[in-house]
Amino acid sequence: MIRVAIIGASGYTGAESINIILRHSEAELTYLSALAAECGAVADVFPQFKGRCSLQIEPLDLDKLADSADVALCCLPHKVSMEFVPKLLNAGLKVIDFSADYRLRELEVYEKYYAKHTDAENLRHAAFGLPELFRDRIKGAKLIANPGCYPTGASLAVAPLLKEGLVETGSIIVNSVTGTSGAGNKPSGKFHFPNMNENLFPYGIGNHRHQPEIEQIMSDVAGKEGSGLFQPHVGPYDRGILSTGYCQPAKKTGNEQLMQLYHDFYAGEHFVQIRKDAPAVKDVAGTNYCHIFVTCVKDRTVSFSAIDNIVKGASGQAIQNMNIIFGVQETLGLV
Amino acid sequence: MIRVAIIGASGYTGAESINIILRHSEAELTYLSALAAECGAVADVFPQFKGRCSLQIEPLDLDKLADSADVALCCLPHKVSMEFVPKLLNAGLKVIDFSADYRLRELEVYEKYYAKHTDAENLRHAAFGLPELFRDRIKGAKLIANPGCYPTGASLAVAPLLKEGLVETGSIIVNSVTGTSGAGNKPSGKFHFPNMNENLFPYGIGNHRHQPEIEQIMSDVAGKEGSGLFQPHVGPYDRGILSTGYCQPAKKTGNEQLMQLYHDFYAGEHFVQIRKDAPAVKDVAGTNYCHIFVTCVKDRTVSFSAIDNIVKGASGQAIQNMNIIFGVQETLGLV
Amino acid sequence: MIRVAIIGASGYTGAESINIILRHSEAELTYLSALAAECGAVADVFPQFKGRCSLQIEPLDLDKLADSADVALCCLPHKVSMEFVPKLLNAGLKVIDFSADYRLRELEVYEKYYAKHTDAENLRHAAFGLPELFRDRIKGAKLIANPGCYPTGASLAVAPLLKEGLVETGSIIVNSVTGTSGAGNKPSGKFHFPNMNENLFPYGIGNHRHQPEIEQIMSDVAGKEGSGLFQPHVGPYDRGILSTGYCQPAKKTGNEQLMQLYHDFYAGEHFVQIRKDAPAVKDVAGTNYCHIFVTCVKDRTVSFSAIDNIVKGASGQAIQNMNIIFGVQETLGLV
Amino acid sequence: MIRVAIIGASGYTGAESINIILRHSEAELTYLSALAAECGAVADVFPQFKGRCSLQIEPLDLDKLADSADVALCCLPHKVSMEFVPKLLNAGLKVIDFSADYRLRELEVYEKYYAKHTDAENLRHAAFGLPELFRDRIKGAKLIANPGCYPTGASLAVAPLLKEGLVETGSIIVNSVTGTSGAGNKPSGKFHFPNMNENLFPYGIGNHRHQPEIEQIMSDVAGKEGSGLFQPHVGPYDRGILSTGYCQPAKKTGNEQLMQLYHDFYAGEHFVQIRKDAPAVKDVAGTNYCHIFVTCVKDRTVSFSAIDNIVKGASGQAIQNMNIIFGVQETLGLV
Repeated sequence: MIRVAIIGASGYTGAESINIILRHSEAELTYLSALAAECGAVADVFPQFKGRCSLQIEPLDLDKLADSADVALCCLPHKVSMEFVPKLLNAGLKVIDFSADYRLRELEVYEKYYAKHTDAENLRHAAFGLPELFRDRIKGAKLIANPGCYPTGASLAVAPLLKEGLVETGSIIVNSVTGTSGAGNKPSGKFHFPNMNENLFPYGIGNHRHQPEIEQIMSDVAGKEGSGLFQPHVGPYDRGILSTGYCQPAKKTGNEQLMQLYHDFYAGEHFVQIRKDAPAVKDVAGTNYCHIFVTCVKDRTVSFSAIDNIVKGASGQAIQNMNIIFGVQETLGLV
Repeated sequence: MIRVAIIGASGYTGAESINIILRHSEAELTYLSALAAECGAVADVFPQFKGRCSLQIEPLDLDKLADSADVALCCLPHKVSMEFVPKLLNAGLKVIDFSADYRLRELEVYEKYYAKHTDAENLRHAAFGLPELFRDRIKGAKLIANPGCYPTGASLAVAPLLKEGLVETGSIIVNSVTGTSGAGNKPSGKFHFPNMNENLFPYGIGNHRHQPEIEQIMSDVAGKEGSGLFQPHVGPYDRGILSTGYCQPAKKTGNEQLMQLYHDFYAGEHFVQIRKDAPAVKDVAGTNYCHIFVTCVKDRTVSFSAIDNIVKGASGQAIQNMNIIFGVQETLGLV
Repeated sequence: MIRVAIIGASGYTGAESINIILRHSEAELTYLSALAAECGAVADVFPQFKGRCSLQIEPLDLDKLADSADVALCCLPHKVSMEFVPKLLNAGLKVIDFSADYRLRELEVYEKYYAKHTDAENLRHAAFGLPELFRDRIKGAKLIANPGCYPTGASLAVAPLLKEGLVETGSIIVNSVTGTSGAGNKPSGKFHFPNMNENLFPYGIGNHRHQPEIEQIMSDVAGKEGSGLFQPHVGPYDRGILSTGYCQPAKKTGNEQLMQLYHDFYAGEHFVQIRKDAPAVKDVAGTNYCHIFVTCVKDRTVSFSAIDNIVKGASGQAIQNMNIIFGVQETLGLV
Repeated sequence: MIRVAIIGASGYTGAESINIILRHSEAELTYLSALAAECGAVADVFPQFKGRCSLQIEPLDLDKLADSADVALCCLPHKVSMEFVPKLLNAGLKVIDFSADYRLRELEVYEKYYAKHTDAENLRHAAFGLPELFRDRIKGAKLIANPGCYPTGASLAVAPLLKEGLVETGSIIVNSVTGTSGAGNKPSGKFHFPNMNENLFPYGIGNHRHQPEIEQIMSDVAGKEGSGLFQPHVGPYDRGILSTGYCQPAKKTGNEQLMQLYHDFYAGEHFVQIRKDAPAVKDVAGTNYCHIFVTCVKDRTVSFSAIDNIVKGASGQAIQNMNIIFGVQETLGLV
């Protein structure tokens, strides 16, 4: 049994990780930690686990953690994460980090969008945990940078086009709409129910932190620099990101070829499903799947992807990565 | 033109009051006030009024207020309200108070559920502003205690039964479900969108502040002491309260008689509509109407009412009261 | 492995049953059937199963069914169900029937609320499948009448009170609010999104078909005839029933005694969790759990329960029953 | 008083038109008509009008209509509309047509996306009713083709850029998300509440009927042929379209210049409000306003607009057009 600790267990990604591990046949929860103010019995913090999980969420005790776990799912916010990750690694744990702290290869890019980086050392060895694109780098890693939710959905939607050089890399526009769980569990005016309900709006215009992450992935896949435009929106529902990618073709490709390309590119990828029709966020809600559709519209290639931002966009993908680095079946706990 | 000031204009009832007055043919907004931190151009505080209202929401200046308005809609929370109401009255304004501070006739009841009462003097002269039940007392009043949202819906649902002595007053159970706008605009964990969405739960079990207000109205209507049970719930939508009243009949009454009784009791009441079928909150959302249905089920009399908690349950009823005390047509701005 | 067939697999309870069996370690789906017009690959009928289930939903072939399955989950509507259940039993399968056809012991009651009953023979041997109340009768049964969603939530909320004779059986009022999935997947005006969204209303006033089912359970638990009042409502969300039970106490009982009573009554019942605070439908959504809270309010005993109408109220409870009759761990697939 | 008839009054745009006219100080409803199966008292068809409107919705009687009204709001579906519009015009009424039948100038374009056109004569004289762009053509018109909801929001978002030649006309991509009321009131599987709730998906991929309408408006505004890409999505809420327009600049323009351009272009337009921040659909829900924001992101110009699809996208704009052709204040009934 893989012994799993969750650091920062009191948020939505913590809860979803608990939920998945509870059904995982080769992993068990052994240690849960959070800020002191958010500690207590799991069932008190998350009533949905009443009778299902008898653990306590406790203030972090590194020794106890090191003794009790093989891997830490680190669900801390960026900047906080890189304070703890080195300690977790030093304690001999494998770490899957949900924050942005180990995702961006270039320090200056990280520092432009986030803050001063304080753990360049481990950054160098972190593997970007998007298995369908970078599984080889993940396999032997001790530290996984679990991708952002938007970058996961956006990249899977356009990766085959980039890989094959079928589109102008600079031309890509990704328009995304997310559910509200992506905003985390801290109350705010924007996400106060009577304000967010029956609402939909764009945000992060021109400065969303996932923009450089998306660019990095796209460049890696294309094998050359590229620069797209990413615009997020939020809509009145809990879970799911629908990403619509608009690309300028580099060469003419028909619908059947596109379809075939996507089928080939994702052949053997259990969690990516190529649809014959438009994907919908409800079809993937609560699952680790990514549904994709691609087609030509007028002189553009348009692709659509749907994922659950908390599962494939966070906790599910983390556990998919965990399964990979521990050498168990990649789909355990996720079907 | 009735010159209207709104005190505490930065919340949901303030916004709805602005919305109604903007369409009122014999009233105009002249002064808006709120806590300093919530001041600014109306269109900045409430983007929905951009281009529709050019007023500023300002910190309260009593002299300026007294000069510019004939009536103050006082949308402050309880306890804060009774600090300001005496000043507003002394300044010569008529006051329609949205808080609970002038609703409960008995000081000790108020003080049990709320706080020490500091304005017993004006409490004595306040009229309880539920026009369909107490219009006569409202007409000449200078201070109106605008009713709570639940008490409005609950009382209108059962008043005819109580008035005619058709039900055991102690037997009444009112089960209500409200939309989330009733909770106000201050963010909280319970009403954080990802928590409140797809949710429904009871609250205020055994201690909701509207319980004594409902009892007072019921006693007034029945002409004798009575004591019912009121249980609120909240559901995942913005506006509307559905109240279901279960009563033990004091004498046997058929469905047709019940229907006739309700039609007679509310004859001439524009804002109460007796339905032949079950009311629904969406049918009254955004309006000042109360839809009611009554029937016998087994050995009980069951009645249902639907109102918009922010309109008939707050701002709309306030302006209905304003129309009454200023002697203009009661429905102005509300159709 | 228990080989499971689902008859009437194309609706919401079919989908949820598929979902649960896919995660069940000792059961496997072997046969899916529906009306011809609703047949096809599972992934085409339900896109959420793309890549997860490769079965076809086929028109019913009894021989094929008999060869391939040990148990049939029969998700057909009432009246249709009793046409097929005898054949399924004759073919040697165990049957868990989701319809009302085998729930009501008295033919005349069934026929008053539904239709002419055509399988009195099997009705006599059917066990009512509410394990927490009637597990003994379920164990050896070949035919399980899986309970209605409302009766499940309503009965669990008040059963300890009835069993102990603490409340007047005739006094019970159950006010319930369900999510919309209870209405099934057939489009209608009432449940058209722009009509149902932001709405909440009562229905089935005085004539809901779950009324006699609730009465039968309550009488069985109390050990004497009783007759309560049940009033359903529907709210704008997918899953969950919140039932609020109002009872007249037969003897005075304090809050602590009530709490202890409920803990004792449900001791060892994994799927019933006694809360210290109000339950919420979101806490049980997607799970087979029932959360309950009980308290005294004024001179009444008020109890609250929350279940997922599609899981504990249908498919989850069916599989809980399946686990019982096949002698495997009762919680398999449901945690 | 302008005497207003509504043809096809039983749908959502009919209801919204009734709602607006009831508050219009210089117009009154005199005649309502629908298919026989959808006739009856307004309050029975739309419970929200109980006590507010005592008219009957009747099967169409042209003579009666001609006698009682000055203008017909024709809320019929495309193809049906052009059967009735000639008769309405011949009867001497002015007509504001909500369908697509008189929107597309070129017969062959209409016939490609819709059906055989049977009223080319009147098509020639129809004015496209988007006042902020084409008010001059509207003023003297007897037949107004009321624009589609998407074309209204999309065009207002990018019109200033096109007019000034600031963007490559062929480069425009408009990504829109609409609320569900745009789908009309006929129940369907896609819009069945348990399917649509918590969902969001693209549709009309590559073949939406508003594509040629958007192209026509853009070409008219730009003064030259252009061809953009339009992709609609639908989200889980009632009202509102958020359109995000991505354009390739033809010349470099700074944010301040863009802002100034939009302010100048829409100077004096009451119903278009230029925001300093991102618009949100809830800010315009229930109103005739269009909120717009424009900015540079990387090497693109990105503009956002929000409208209520039923008001500014249908009934409100129709009444704005009515006010124009009858020479009353353009905002009557709409503030």
